[in-house]
Amino acid sequence: MSQESLTFDIFEPQPLVIVISGPSGVGKDAVLKSLKQRQLPFHFVVTATTRPPRPGEIEGVDYFFVSHEEFEEMIQKDALIEYAQVYNDLKGVPRSQVEQALASGKDVILRLDVQGAAKVRSLFPNSSVLIFLIPANDEEWLLRLQQRNTETPETLQLRLDTARSELKRLKEFDYIVINAQNRLEEAVSTIIECIHAEHHRVNDRNLKQ
Amino acid sequence: MSQESLTFDIFEPQPLVIVISGPSGVGKDAVLKSLKQRQLPFHFVVTATTRPPRPGEIEGVDYFFVSHEEFEEMIQKDALIEYAQVYNDLKGVPRSQVEQALASGKDVILRLDVQGAAKVRSLFPNSSVLIFLIPANDEEWLLRLQQRNTETPETLQLRLDTARSELKRLKEFDYIVINAQNRLEEAVSTIIECIHAEHHRVNDRNLKQ
Repeated sequence: MSQESLTFDIFEPQPLVIVISGPSGVGKDAVLKSLKQRQLPFHFVVTATTRPPRPGEIEGVDYFFVSHEEFEEMIQKDALIEYAQVYNDLKGVPRSQVEQALASGKDVILRLDVQGAAKVRSLFPNSSVLIFLIPANDEEWLLRLQQRNTETPETLQLRLDTARSELKRLKEFDYIVINAQNRLEEAVSTIIECIHAEHHRVNDRNLKQ
Repeated sequence: MSQESLTFDIFEPQPLVIVISGPSGVGKDAVLKSLKQRQLPFHFVVTATTRPPRPGEIEGVDYFFVSHEEFEEMIQKDALIEYAQVYNDLKGVPRSQVEQALASGKDVILRLDVQGAAKVRSLFPNSSVLIFLIPANDEEWLLRLQQRNTETPETLQLRLDTARSELKRLKEFDYIVINAQNRLEEAVSTIIECIHAEHHRVNDRNLKQ
C-alpha cells in the first residue's frame, strides 16, 4: 500500500494575540474579569502604567507601576508593543511579556482601544484576533454611562463622539460580540468560541508548511 | 446631545450553509448524529437518493427515496443544489429544502465530499462555511478503515488515493477539526464553536448595510 504522500499530520494551531476592544461603558473590565475566572490557558497582559496604585491594587497583578522616567526608558528601548496617554498617565503593553506568553504556547489577551488594536494587527498580522464589544442597543449603553455618575455632559459628549468614530473602524475587527445587560456570561462564552474557532481556521498559521 | 449618527444597531447575523466533509472513515456520520442530538436550531438536510431504503430507514428522515426517473427530473428542473453518483446510485441536495431553511433563519448542515463542498461555496460564496474533518493521525485512520471489515485491498487503496487528493484541496475549507478516537464529543463541540464564531464575524453577511 503506497502511503508515502498521505499524512494527516498537517495541523498545528499557533497561539494568538487577542484584543478586546469596544466603547467606554460597554463592560470590557467585567468581560475580562469573567474571562479570567474561566481558568482557561490564556495569558492576560499586565499593563505598565505611570498612574499611582489605587487602594488594593497589586503590583504585577493589576498593573506594573512605573515612574514617568521608567516609562520613557521603556519607550526608548522599544520595550512596549503599544502605549497611549490616558489623561495625564501613560499606559503600555510590555513586549517581552507578550512574546514570552506566545513562546510558551499561550494565547495572549489584551484590552486596547481601536488605535491599539490596529497597532497589534500591524505587529502580528497573522496571529492577531480583534474582538469588538458592543452594547445591546444605544439606550442601554447611554443608561449605563449615565449610571456611572461620573459623567458630566462634556465627558458624555466626548464618549459619544469617540464611540461614533470607533464604530466607523469596526471593519478592522474580526469579531463583533454583544455584551447585553445581565448577559455577561453569554458574551464571555461567545468570545471563547471565537478564540477556539480561530485555532481551527484553515490558514498558514494553523497548518504545517 | 447629538446622537443622530450613533447607533449600535449594526449587527444582524445571517444563517449559514455549513458543509461537513472529510475522508471516508473519519466519522462524519457519527459526528452528524451527535450534532443532531445537541438539539440546536440547525436544519440537517435530507438528501434525495435513488438507492432503495435499507431496513429501518424512514422516508423524509433518513433520505427522500426517489426513482431514477424522478431524480433525472429533479436535475432537469434544477431542483438540486448538488448531486453525485455513488456507485450505481444518485444522491442530491434538494434546493427548496436549503432555501426554505435559510429563509426561516436556520443554519443548514450538509454532509458532502470535497467537490460538493466547492459547489456549495460557489453557490453561497458569502454564507457557506466549509469544515473538514481529519483523524488524529494516519495510523488511527487506517485502523478504522480496516476494522470496517468491508474493505478489500483495492477499495482501501482507492480510499487512500481519494484522501490524498482531498487533502490537497484542504485550503478550500474554512475550518479543520480533528475527530480523534473516543473524542467525538470534543469534535462536535468544536464544530459548534466554529459555527457560532461565524455568526459573530465582522463581514457584509453579519453587518447591516
